[in-house]
Amino acid sequence: MKDDRILLAHGAGGKKSSELTERIFLNYFNDPALIELNDMAVLDLPNGRVSMSTDTYVVDPIFFPGGDIGSLAVHGTVNDVAMAGSVPFAITVAFVLEEGLPLNDLDRIAGSMARAAAEAKVRIVTADTKVVPRGAADKLFINTTGIGIIPAGIQISGKSAREGDRILLSGTIGDHGIAIASAREGIEFKTTVTSDSAPLNGMIGELVDALGKDIHVLRDPTRGGLATVLSEIASQSSVGVEVKETSIPVRDAVKGACELLGYDPLYLANEGKLVAVVAQNASERALEIMKGSKYGQDACLIGEITVENKGKVILKTAMGGKRLVDKLSGEMLPRIC
Amino acid sequence: MKDDRILLAHGAGGKKSSELTERIFLNYFNDPALIELNDMAVLDLPNGRVSMSTDTYVVDPIFFPGGDIGSLAVHGTVNDVAMAGSVPFAITVAFVLEEGLPLNDLDRIAGSMARAAAEAKVRIVTADTKVVPRGAADKLFINTTGIGIIPAGIQISGKSAREGDRILLSGTIGDHGIAIASAREGIEFKTTVTSDSAPLNGMIGELVDALGKDIHVLRDPTRGGLATVLSEIASQSSVGVEVKETSIPVRDAVKGACELLGYDPLYLANEGKLVAVVAQNASERALEIMKGSKYGQDACLIGEITVENKGKVILKTAMGGKRLVDKLSGEMLPRIC
Repeated sequence: MKDDRILLAHGAGGKKSSELTERIFLNYFNDPALIELNDMAVLDLPNGRVSMSTDTYVVDPIFFPGGDIGSLAVHGTVNDVAMAGSVPFAITVAFVLEEGLPLNDLDRIAGSMARAAAEAKVRIVTADTKVVPRGAADKLFINTTGIGIIPAGIQISGKSAREGDRILLSGTIGDHGIAIASAREGIEFKTTVTSDSAPLNGMIGELVDALGKDIHVLRDPTRGGLATVLSEIASQSSVGVEVKETSIPVRDAVKGACELLGYDPLYLANEGKLVAVVAQNASERALEIMKGSKYGQDACLIGEITVENKGKVILKTAMGGKRLVDKLSGEMLPRIC
Repeated sequence: MKDDRILLAHGAGGKKSSELTERIFLNYFNDPALIELNDMAVLDLPNGRVSMSTDTYVVDPIFFPGGDIGSLAVHGTVNDVAMAGSVPFAITVAFVLEEGLPLNDLDRIAGSMARAAAEAKVRIVTADTKVVPRGAADKLFINTTGIGIIPAGIQISGKSAREGDRILLSGTIGDHGIAIASAREGIEFKTTVTSDSAPLNGMIGELVDALGKDIHVLRDPTRGGLATVLSEIASQSSVGVEVKETSIPVRDAVKGACELLGYDPLYLANEGKLVAVVAQNASERALEIMKGSKYGQDACLIGEITVENKGKVILKTAMGGKRLVDKLSGEMLPRIC
């Protein structure tokens, strides 16, 4: 195959589609279910309840400091699946490619997906490729849909926060949002901000193994940021959420960029962070586990669940005041993920 | 919410996203897992092996005679999942919306998906919505990913065709392809050709229940058409495929349109048809079941599996000759599904 760009024929389901599959996808994706090349994958699932999650990734630019649309598509879905306390098992991948996309870009992205899936120990079991004419999509979009196995007895949900629970955050916020904003706008800061895109299922597995039912809620603050996730927990669990501004870690470079661009880090997207709401008696051990984990070294206690202010998020400010934090209004930054 | 078009804020994960979810999606999608509005669905899967399939639908136009992108997205994935002989259980839905898309269109499409899922008895368990700026996508794309339960002992695969097996086709070919081509080009034929988009899992369930292991291969001839599917079976099973041209049903209106537009119906996409390769002794009963099923009334025997011509598809022509049928080369019609 001498083509160096995507042609409409690559999506037609005939010879050119087979060539593309062999040249690029089978080069990186080699799961026994996938290489059968049926229109579906047949899997033996371990017993248990499952969690399923789907996301289409439309991030712009497709390559950014700390990752690309391919690694992000694996991390994002693995993380969403894992937030039920489950062990991600398999993901499906569906590409929408714009006619004219350089095959080198697709090759680099497929390789990046394979590496991300290997690190997260998740199988890529079946895939789909569509090609649309030039101008009908922007470069490429990737859907990943994942399935994970929930260990027996685990009930982690946005509804399960209880009075007195502690709120833990696995690290700094705003890194992904600022990395995308600066890559897109070509803005240079003193320090390059790198996306935090990472698989969190390893950390979640350790938390669930060690603390089981004492983990009440897990949530990743992606679109809408930490503020939106805390608001959702307050509303789903009908509790108050109280967090301390000075406890929330934000890199200096992210702070600087936020001042320059007018963003609030509380609303910026993260792609490698989680919020854990855990029973008070388990919070110390949980924090220890998070800090000992590759992607949780900056983990910290940021607040607690209260019986007052049901459905609301209260931020105790650096100045000693309190302010109400609402969900994101409007749009800060399109195509962040 | 007074907006009548999609705004970027509808995809930001904040207040506007919640409004859109409540106004449109929760109006039609009410599965207990989905209405929890976590980023993932938690499901109790019945025991068994599973099949998984993913497809992103980019069909143009989004409304066409016989369906729309929503019903197609449900039927297409339900059918792919079911081609393992399995019972489709749940699907996920992920939208990419272009800024400016009329909310009425989205409403109509979501309603159509809900009806299609109800008919196919499949749950819509979790969803995702992304919005991209005007011009970065064309109206909307929909990914659906499905999971189905394979009954114990069933091994249906493209590799399982055996010498002497009979090849059955569930009805006329080319309807979907011509429906899309004429809707897109605004070509009027004497008779409007309607897409055959339909869920085939009911028919498959009856076949598997009645004939079990005598069903060797099931495949839906979508992109690439009947010719491509037969080629794939010949190659995956290392057998010859011999079909009789005069046995393959094609509507007169489709024949006429093919002559006018220069298409070969063998390569046109179908979205409500299946090819079944069954043991010789089971073929009469299989045909009876297909003909008795809502979407198989025009089912017929079209050929058989041979030991000669391994990996090849031979068409016995109306004139009495034989010709080799290859996979689709190039692209006939972009954005057919």
